[in-house]
Amino acid sequence: MLRPWPVSLGDRISRSRDVPMYMQIIQAVIRDIERGRLTSGAYLPSSRELAQILGVNRKTVVLAYEDLIAQGWLDSTGTRGTMVATSLPDPVKRQHAEIEATMSNAAVDYRFAPPPERPLALPSGSGLKLDEGAPDGRLFPAELLARAYRSAAHNASRENGFQYRDPRGSPALRESIATMLKSQRGLPVTAENICITRGSQNGIFLASQVLVSPGDSVIVEALTYEPAVAAFRALGANIVPVDVDEDGINTDAVEYACRRNAVRAVFVTPHHQFPTTVSLRPERRLRLLELARQFGFAIIEDDYDHEFHFESQPLLPMAGYGPGLVIYVGSMSKLLLPALRIGYVAAPPPVIDAIAHMVSLTDGMGNTLTEDAAAELIENGELRRHARKVRQIYAKRRESFAAEIDKTLGDIADYRMPDGGLAFWLRFHDTDLDQMEQRAAAMGLRFASSRSFMTRADAPRGLRIGFASLNPYEARTALAALRKAAG
Amino acid sequence: MLRPWPVSLGDRISRSRDVPMYMQIIQAVIRDIERGRLTSGAYLPSSRELAQILGVNRKTVVLAYEDLIAQGWLDSTGTRGTMVATSLPDPVKRQHAEIEATMSNAAVDYRFAPPPERPLALPSGSGLKLDEGAPDGRLFPAELLARAYRSAAHNASRENGFQYRDPRGSPALRESIATMLKSQRGLPVTAENICITRGSQNGIFLASQVLVSPGDSVIVEALTYEPAVAAFRALGANIVPVDVDEDGINTDAVEYACRRNAVRAVFVTPHHQFPTTVSLRPERRLRLLELARQFGFAIIEDDYDHEFHFESQPLLPMAGYGPGLVIYVGSMSKLLLPALRIGYVAAPPPVIDAIAHMVSLTDGMGNTLTEDAAAELIENGELRRHARKVRQIYAKRRESFAAEIDKTLGDIADYRMPDGGLAFWLRFHDTDLDQMEQRAAAMGLRFASSRSFMTRADAPRGLRIGFASLNPYEARTALAALRKAAG
Repeated sequence: MLRPWPVSLGDRISRSRDVPMYMQIIQAVIRDIERGRLTSGAYLPSSRELAQILGVNRKTVVLAYEDLIAQGWLDSTGTRGTMVATSLPDPVKRQHAEIEATMSNAAVDYRFAPPPERPLALPSGSGLKLDEGAPDGRLFPAELLARAYRSAAHNASRENGFQYRDPRGSPALRESIATMLKSQRGLPVTAENICITRGSQNGIFLASQVLVSPGDSVIVEALTYEPAVAAFRALGANIVPVDVDEDGINTDAVEYACRRNAVRAVFVTPHHQFPTTVSLRPERRLRLLELARQFGFAIIEDDYDHEFHFESQPLLPMAGYGPGLVIYVGSMSKLLLPALRIGYVAAPPPVIDAIAHMVSLTDGMGNTLTEDAAAELIENGELRRHARKVRQIYAKRRESFAAEIDKTLGDIADYRMPDGGLAFWLRFHDTDLDQMEQRAAAMGLRFASSRSFMTRADAPRGLRIGFASLNPYEARTALAALRKAAG
Repeated sequence: MLRPWPVSLGDRISRSRDVPMYMQIIQAVIRDIERGRLTSGAYLPSSRELAQILGVNRKTVVLAYEDLIAQGWLDSTGTRGTMVATSLPDPVKRQHAEIEATMSNAAVDYRFAPPPERPLALPSGSGLKLDEGAPDGRLFPAELLARAYRSAAHNASRENGFQYRDPRGSPALRESIATMLKSQRGLPVTAENICITRGSQNGIFLASQVLVSPGDSVIVEALTYEPAVAAFRALGANIVPVDVDEDGINTDAVEYACRRNAVRAVFVTPHHQFPTTVSLRPERRLRLLELARQFGFAIIEDDYDHEFHFESQPLLPMAGYGPGLVIYVGSMSKLLLPALRIGYVAAPPPVIDAIAHMVSLTDGMGNTLTEDAAAELIENGELRRHARKVRQIYAKRRESFAAEIDKTLGDIADYRMPDGGLAFWLRFHDTDLDQMEQRAAAMGLRFASSRSFMTRADAPRGLRIGFASLNPYEARTALAALRKAAG
């Protein structure tokens, strides 16, 4: 009776306690069957022998063999011992690497779409960071959040509310969001017009899923929000970039593009254009709605930071006067916290149902506990109090950030004071931005590349720099570093 | 000076306090401009006149006019009054509905993909429900969850951890999941092989996004998990259903399909086949891996309820011995709670990077707070303790549910006791399932339609009935209702 196995088994068994010993034996046997080291009908050493070879308790080997027999990998032949099940197919002969394949060193044997060279999101990491207009999470009292979660957890537990639920989101939050949109943004909505999403990016993604098929055209501005463009591209959309100026998207260019392409959607951020911060002027809003009616496209209106507007009252969203032409996307990331991933889409009920279907195949539903906690923070007024507090802080930070830019970058860059939102748009006179970005990366200063906003090579390049998440000291340090990178 | 406006403005101003009065005036003016009731150059009533007409404070009207002027909708002509800005385009003449359009009654003017007739998710609602194998959320102590969230919130607050982060997920949770997969599922992984997802459906969705292009073929079983199929379909995949029997997917049928189609992925649930609960036999596992190598497709292995196995040890996942052929998808929904939406994908790092890119365009990243709270529950051992507790409870419920089925449905249905997982697969002898499902719906008894599992009209129909979320009394009531629906 030949018993060539175990070949180097001892080397492959780890003494670490990460993986239980009997499981390692099971794994090793299956892998050796899979790789043809153990073939159908081959005898294994007795449990006593293998235990001795490996220096483990015999019971461990018995347990492993029993499981392998129960699962059909091995056959017990009674007194003659244990053999590889004769039902198993003969392995295909092939070269094997010497090293055991793990998930980390395995060659990938299937084709997949590789990621782009430059990641969409600013990678997390240490060092200085200038974001694109994030809020300062440190200003939100952790205890408030903890209490809202506690109360949501206890309620859900009582009502068996931890199960799979409505893909449109928690009823309480849909109700609260509808009320908020009505009173703060003048939107003619009720809860049935709301689908909760995972942040505004998820809202844009879901809207595009119901609007765009491969080959359809989507209009975006020459400078815009890259993750939105990536979502359209992933659907096989033909991206049509059009000009944007200090009045927002150029509607003549939109009309021109519509005459040449089957445009299904136009993505805009009318309130504070991303990245340039300008507002879309009334005449262009009216024109865009008219074009939507004429060419049958949907306007995806991302109202991403309407909560922060420092001059006069904020402009009301286009969805308010074109409810059948606009899919409205918003988020609580700026007011509450990005980390909670609460966004929403507002649209007529048939569109909400279509979007809810996309939710159920994308991620099933949202995090109910978080949704209920957010609803509680709205209902008990804590979010409103927080908004009042941070609005004052951000208003001051906007002023002092502007002063700091004047001091540090005044000779090499220009900006227009933003009426609202949490970021500045900086245009540089003669600085080579590619060089600057390389130097910044080498210095450990992270910010979104000026290229990330551009959908056309001739778009006016610039940097979008958030001011809200930095206290005055941090702002000074970061801008000084930026200046250094500029050379 | 003609001042025909306001036409019926008083009727359109609501006395409710939902929307502030000055915002209602702003909205009404913009809408009337948009609809051509107010044309470029037309004069508005003085603030005093309008205040009188509407019966509001004059200051409210002044505030609204000021904002409309600042935003460019109106022009102030000094002493002559306020007019609609001459920069606005003349509206296109068209019929207007008498009723003011809201998001709820607006006609949708763009084309969108409508949802299917039968929703993917079992709609939430009142009445009796039989799920497809959900855990009992009431067994998870709400206080444990609340404490984990509190601690995560305070940590994040200290570290400014509420910002946008790595799309692969929280480092702590990726570490914990890798350790768990190594020790409990024998997977050769580290944290760099892990991407956190929003439940296993999101994992399947993301995997399909990197694998499948329009026109590619995806193999699924004749009976399978409908939301996965919907995710492939949404990508324009050609769905190729193949037979499944008591040994799992028929690998001869897979080979046959691969010779006729450009197959890019095969979706399977080898541990407990969804919906039939059978395990994929070793010889078929080896054969499927061999076919993957031969035809270059990826195996999407959904290991959705490996935590619950009541006979012998659970089979180890195929990803353990075919790490370069398999994208492994799992979830904490069964062990922890569905409502938290924590799932994960395990794959080689290049594939994880590609999936992370899809995360950043789908929803940006996960809920960091929830991810950190989940990591804490793993690290402090609470999740392990909970697993031990519920395993005993579910083992008992499985037995008593089987006895209850015997008693209530024994004469009309068959089942095989499931080795693991949280559901039974029921086959009916002569019952007309369409009639039964209609009667159940009329009675207010909700469960997934037998049709929802079928990807082929000739697939053997049945019902998948979860037992874990019901206590013995609830189980008895629900099964009695099911019996009644059967007629």
